[in-house]
Amino acid sequence: MKNPRIIGQSIPRLDAPDKATGRAIYTDDIKLPGMLYGKLLRSPLAHARIKRIDVAKARALPGVKDVIIGADTPQVKYGNWRLVPGSQDELPLAVDKVRFVGDEVAAVAALDPETAERACALIEVEYEELPAIFTVEEAIAEGAPLIHDESPGNVSLVRKIAYGDLDQMFAQAHYVREDTFKVHAVQHAYLEPCACVAQAEEGSRVTLWTSTQVPYIVQCLLASTLGLPENNVRVMKVAVGGGFGGKMELRPWEFCAAFLALRTGRPLKFTLTRSDELAFGRRRHPMSIYSKVAFSKEGKLLAKDFQVLLDGGAYNAMGPTATYLCGTFGNMLYNFPAYRYLGQHVYTNKPPASAMRGFGAPQAAFAAETQMNLAAQELGLDPIDLRLINAMQTGDEIPEVATISSCGFKESLTKVRQISGWDLKRKDKKPGRGLGIGCFSFISGGVFNWFNTKYNFSAAEVKVFEDGTAQLACMACDIGQGPDTVLRQILSAELGVSIEKIRLISMDTAATPKADLGTWGSRVTLMNGNAVIQAAGKIKDMLAPVLFSQFDLNQIHDLAFEDDKVFVRANPKRSMSLAECVYKALKGRRGEPLTARGYYTPRNKGLVSPAFSFGAQVAEVEVDADTGLTKVVKMYTAHDCGVPINKMSVEGQLEGAVQMGLGYTLMENLILDQQGRTLNTTFLDYKMPTAQDMPPGESVDVDTYEPEGPFGAKEAGEGLAIPTAPAIAHAVYEACGYRCKELPITPEKVLRALGKIK
Amino acid sequence: MKNPRIIGQSIPRLDAPDKATGRAIYTDDIKLPGMLYGKLLRSPLAHARIKRIDVAKARALPGVKDVIIGADTPQVKYGNWRLVPGSQDELPLAVDKVRFVGDEVAAVAALDPETAERACALIEVEYEELPAIFTVEEAIAEGAPLIHDESPGNVSLVRKIAYGDLDQMFAQAHYVREDTFKVHAVQHAYLEPCACVAQAEEGSRVTLWTSTQVPYIVQCLLASTLGLPENNVRVMKVAVGGGFGGKMELRPWEFCAAFLALRTGRPLKFTLTRSDELAFGRRRHPMSIYSKVAFSKEGKLLAKDFQVLLDGGAYNAMGPTATYLCGTFGNMLYNFPAYRYLGQHVYTNKPPASAMRGFGAPQAAFAAETQMNLAAQELGLDPIDLRLINAMQTGDEIPEVATISSCGFKESLTKVRQISGWDLKRKDKKPGRGLGIGCFSFISGGVFNWFNTKYNFSAAEVKVFEDGTAQLACMACDIGQGPDTVLRQILSAELGVSIEKIRLISMDTAATPKADLGTWGSRVTLMNGNAVIQAAGKIKDMLAPVLFSQFDLNQIHDLAFEDDKVFVRANPKRSMSLAECVYKALKGRRGEPLTARGYYTPRNKGLVSPAFSFGAQVAEVEVDADTGLTKVVKMYTAHDCGVPINKMSVEGQLEGAVQMGLGYTLMENLILDQQGRTLNTTFLDYKMPTAQDMPPGESVDVDTYEPEGPFGAKEAGEGLAIPTAPAIAHAVYEACGYRCKELPITPEKVLRALGKIK
Repeated sequence: MKNPRIIGQSIPRLDAPDKATGRAIYTDDIKLPGMLYGKLLRSPLAHARIKRIDVAKARALPGVKDVIIGADTPQVKYGNWRLVPGSQDELPLAVDKVRFVGDEVAAVAALDPETAERACALIEVEYEELPAIFTVEEAIAEGAPLIHDESPGNVSLVRKIAYGDLDQMFAQAHYVREDTFKVHAVQHAYLEPCACVAQAEEGSRVTLWTSTQVPYIVQCLLASTLGLPENNVRVMKVAVGGGFGGKMELRPWEFCAAFLALRTGRPLKFTLTRSDELAFGRRRHPMSIYSKVAFSKEGKLLAKDFQVLLDGGAYNAMGPTATYLCGTFGNMLYNFPAYRYLGQHVYTNKPPASAMRGFGAPQAAFAAETQMNLAAQELGLDPIDLRLINAMQTGDEIPEVATISSCGFKESLTKVRQISGWDLKRKDKKPGRGLGIGCFSFISGGVFNWFNTKYNFSAAEVKVFEDGTAQLACMACDIGQGPDTVLRQILSAELGVSIEKIRLISMDTAATPKADLGTWGSRVTLMNGNAVIQAAGKIKDMLAPVLFSQFDLNQIHDLAFEDDKVFVRANPKRSMSLAECVYKALKGRRGEPLTARGYYTPRNKGLVSPAFSFGAQVAEVEVDADTGLTKVVKMYTAHDCGVPINKMSVEGQLEGAVQMGLGYTLMENLILDQQGRTLNTTFLDYKMPTAQDMPPGESVDVDTYEPEGPFGAKEAGEGLAIPTAPAIAHAVYEACGYRCKELPITPEKVLRALGKIK
Repeated sequence: MKNPRIIGQSIPRLDAPDKATGRAIYTDDIKLPGMLYGKLLRSPLAHARIKRIDVAKARALPGVKDVIIGADTPQVKYGNWRLVPGSQDELPLAVDKVRFVGDEVAAVAALDPETAERACALIEVEYEELPAIFTVEEAIAEGAPLIHDESPGNVSLVRKIAYGDLDQMFAQAHYVREDTFKVHAVQHAYLEPCACVAQAEEGSRVTLWTSTQVPYIVQCLLASTLGLPENNVRVMKVAVGGGFGGKMELRPWEFCAAFLALRTGRPLKFTLTRSDELAFGRRRHPMSIYSKVAFSKEGKLLAKDFQVLLDGGAYNAMGPTATYLCGTFGNMLYNFPAYRYLGQHVYTNKPPASAMRGFGAPQAAFAAETQMNLAAQELGLDPIDLRLINAMQTGDEIPEVATISSCGFKESLTKVRQISGWDLKRKDKKPGRGLGIGCFSFISGGVFNWFNTKYNFSAAEVKVFEDGTAQLACMACDIGQGPDTVLRQILSAELGVSIEKIRLISMDTAATPKADLGTWGSRVTLMNGNAVIQAAGKIKDMLAPVLFSQFDLNQIHDLAFEDDKVFVRANPKRSMSLAECVYKALKGRRGEPLTARGYYTPRNKGLVSPAFSFGAQVAEVEVDADTGLTKVVKMYTAHDCGVPINKMSVEGQLEGAVQMGLGYTLMENLILDQQGRTLNTTFLDYKMPTAQDMPPGESVDVDTYEPEGPFGAKEAGEGLAIPTAPAIAHAVYEACGYRCKELPITPEKVLRALGKIK
């Protein structure tokens, strides 16, 4: 299939110059007249009953305009899983109990942030401390204290998948192995800490500017917690400095800002600090994973028993989705006849875990891919060969998931083997050096409607003007991943209008068509892209009559829309500028503007995703046997994201993913003390790879065309964040013999494995 | 015709609480990060050639970020009359010549307003002074210096109307009289001086927040002066503190803000001072009016020869429209067979006159109505009787204008006679007291497309949501006259949704449907109201199937939309809440939102207006023969605005109109010195009536139903500003014998007329 020229081009991000030069406006830049500043009082205890709160002294402090506690609020529980109302377990401000160090207890509105801070310190809270739980094992143990009364055994959600005859497969297997894995908590560490500004309007309406990935979700949940109709809340997104899954829920400060703005009649701003984010913010789920696999003599995967305990922290947050996807990604990539998954989302008295780039898959894949490497060794097979034997391909069906309509996994394996020099380097092994492999598959947006939206999953509105320009309006969010450019490329490709002539409006739930579920699950390019294409198609239908009538065309002629022109494909001389064509159509419509809306919801694509990406990654490492330090020498990636709309953007995603994977595997780790207080709350203590730590990389795209994707595209945002940990862990084993089953790979663990320390 | 209950209700303005409590955001409240402040350097001379400009010292001043002069700009002339490109005579910054004291010569962008001001003072401009002209008589005199080379005789535009055999009518008349009248310059004196903030985006796009009545017109003209496609400019209106016609054009600071924002890459704000406004701002046209009328013995008006010289100041601005409407309002109100109008728009070296509430009509009516009163006296007829003999009525045709589809003029005359106690008080005259009458008619929006818009004149978008709320989006501007409430009443009436459930989005050229020509000519209620009704009708068509299918209705059933419910009119028990109906429709559409757009452009309604208001006003005054002071004792008004949508709003318009009329007649006057410099540039010197100066009033609505108007409505915003001057002038004559033909009526003129001073 031949795509328009602009598809696949490396177009620099259209939003980049404004961001790079400081001209872009972020939420904290917003200043409104009479604006107040908000601060939150948080629980100092991990688990306690609130006996009494006295805000009198705080109220009396000059400059304080309002103080609220949970009892002042409508006390509506919220959570993204509206489809299962019982899963909504969070209150904007705690009422009876606090469940983690940092749980929000009260909020202050004051003339300046310092006064608000001082007022928080004047609020007296009397707690009755309760025993706290910090591990999933403690949490599910008999007689453990209950964190939520509604969840016996502290398990908030169980997800099961089962197909095939597991027992029979294990019985007939040539080779069976079982392993347990542990993964830890890391954070998104987006550059822009959360911030929001709320402004009340006409007494019962509120506008919220907030750093979010999901304006529509925030709109709905904020309205329900305020007790207002959904459409009395307007969410405006300005520039967002990263999200990675950490900004995809309603958050307490958003509620408090809106609630206080309505109470005080004045605008109000909350801005979190980096320490707030590291100490109390959302994070990737720590998990305990048990996996048992069976193989035939030839290396055919026969069965897998996959059991996961997700450490959800104090509230569900996006834990249900992670629990769900963990099971899905425990059986992706390979065909096998029997699978059983038991995922349990467990409460602990820690800051809630939630969505983070990969959404359950990096953890599941660390276990599953590491186990593949272990099995290969035992089976005496090359790990890539073992994968090739079992790899999915186009047309395969994943039970309960989907039919795979495009799959470049085998090609990815073959290509990464080639570019990494896999065979030669494994044969000709250097001491202290090793190559390891990890693979991935990921969704291009979700089908299962956990948010229970009544609207299409994505919507876009296209307007064309007689000056030859166009406008694209949608709620899709650019949080750094590039859709502000990619969606315009898609419109440009479909309608032939130059990309620089397209204005994008993407930040306003009141001004853009309803709805878009936002940025998560790598959904934007495919889902919003399809909505854009549908809208553009309707515009073409409005323009076609002009040419057919003006040039007296045969009705069977096809029109082409390219280079700001409309012309007869069979006879390009019969052409008109797009501007002129719009002008004539507008005149013909007696002044009715040319506007069209397109929508997308996946249909007949199963319950998980309309399309899946695939890929394989090889890490080459050097382990220093004296220091235990792992140095990643080079990363090789081959991946199938369908047709990349913007090559440079895909490369950016890859580089960012390697950086995050590196941090996850080797450095980052949120460490809590015995009282559940986070110890590393600055970037001095929470170590992340910097640009200087980045290894060189080499990558290759595998050519597929996803029929469900716009111009053949599918996801490239999250899948690439999955394989790095198992690849590096494997490489470390090959380099020094340390077989990591518990992330991160620290020098201490390496030295202990090498017997150099105890 | 029975209208929904909400039509005609006195609903307090929905925007009022936010405005009254200081919560509403005006343009000057906007602060953007890195924002610069702009100042304009203006010409100190009324007429001069620019020989040299040196900005070096200004540029060198620390804190100055940019300085521009005309030569730096694209030098595209602009003006609202795009239909006649030659009438576009204004440059954002003067290039060769300055034409009035205040003509913009340069603009500075600096870190703070004080620095910008200091930099302006450092700009060296060498002028060659030219002879300046300050009266229309001088301007059209033989050999007068030319203000614009393109306009010989300094006449920029001539408008002629002629029908009937004037000579024959004058020859056969029983009574002929001719008079000359003079009216002066007054200002809108809106509470909010002009301000704007511009922000560049993606290098070639600009967003402008500005205090304007016409976002769409500003968008188009700003784009053309910047040399950008129209849709690269986005205009956002925030709360506007009054306009009255003074904010209905692109203005130099709007251009300079956008141009400097694009050059510097930083946002930039201009805020004018009250002195700027009074010294250099738009104002109502001074005019010299010659009028000759002929009557039959019975008092039938036979012919009128109406010749007007409009003192336009240095540029056309909205002068062409005033010239046009002056002729229209010279022959409105009364039926007569022969009319000749010659209007000439004349340049002088004064700040440009432009649109101001009434748009040419207050001046024309002062002359025409005063002359009616003079004629009545000579004919020995009561002035009201004379009017009744000649008054227009429903179905009458105004040549070249329209057929009058509703007219309550005669009823207005009869009612105002009654409520004012006209007959009794005239019989039983008290010394120093007098009653006078003035009448009016006005347009409800214009038909003639001087702006040459390619779009419908008005557009509205309605969305309904499953929470029972609705959203109305349009570009119509609330500048204090109330459409933010009235348009929601119209939607509420049509769709049955409670008014408080309707969110209004009215401030963004990129987010609201194209286009609306803005607020002028009393067009909003009728034109945008009709667009709202059309959009709501489309929504009803989307909802009807739900009920027909759910209740298995007979296809001939009618549905009613009232009280947030939809029901069968013949059987109201068959009903559904609007929320449920929307929910079901949304589900049936598989998530496609319910959105509809409506449009309005007058069709088959002539070239002037789709509908006309009418009315009569009686002033009762007391003149103090010692001081010459005129005190208005009471104002009586009877008027026909069709069906008032919001009674309280109409009353507000009436009160405001009386206040403005009072100022126009008795106090306000912009006074220039010999060099063309305005002398009264503060509210201490420019006297306006305050609330304490307001006389009591009594008013009555005349019941008509305008078929072209939404729910029978027509204009109530400007017509009421017309009759006050002739009514007071007449009353002053009746009280003391001073017959004013030259406004304003000052104590000095009264005393001179009474022979008390010379």
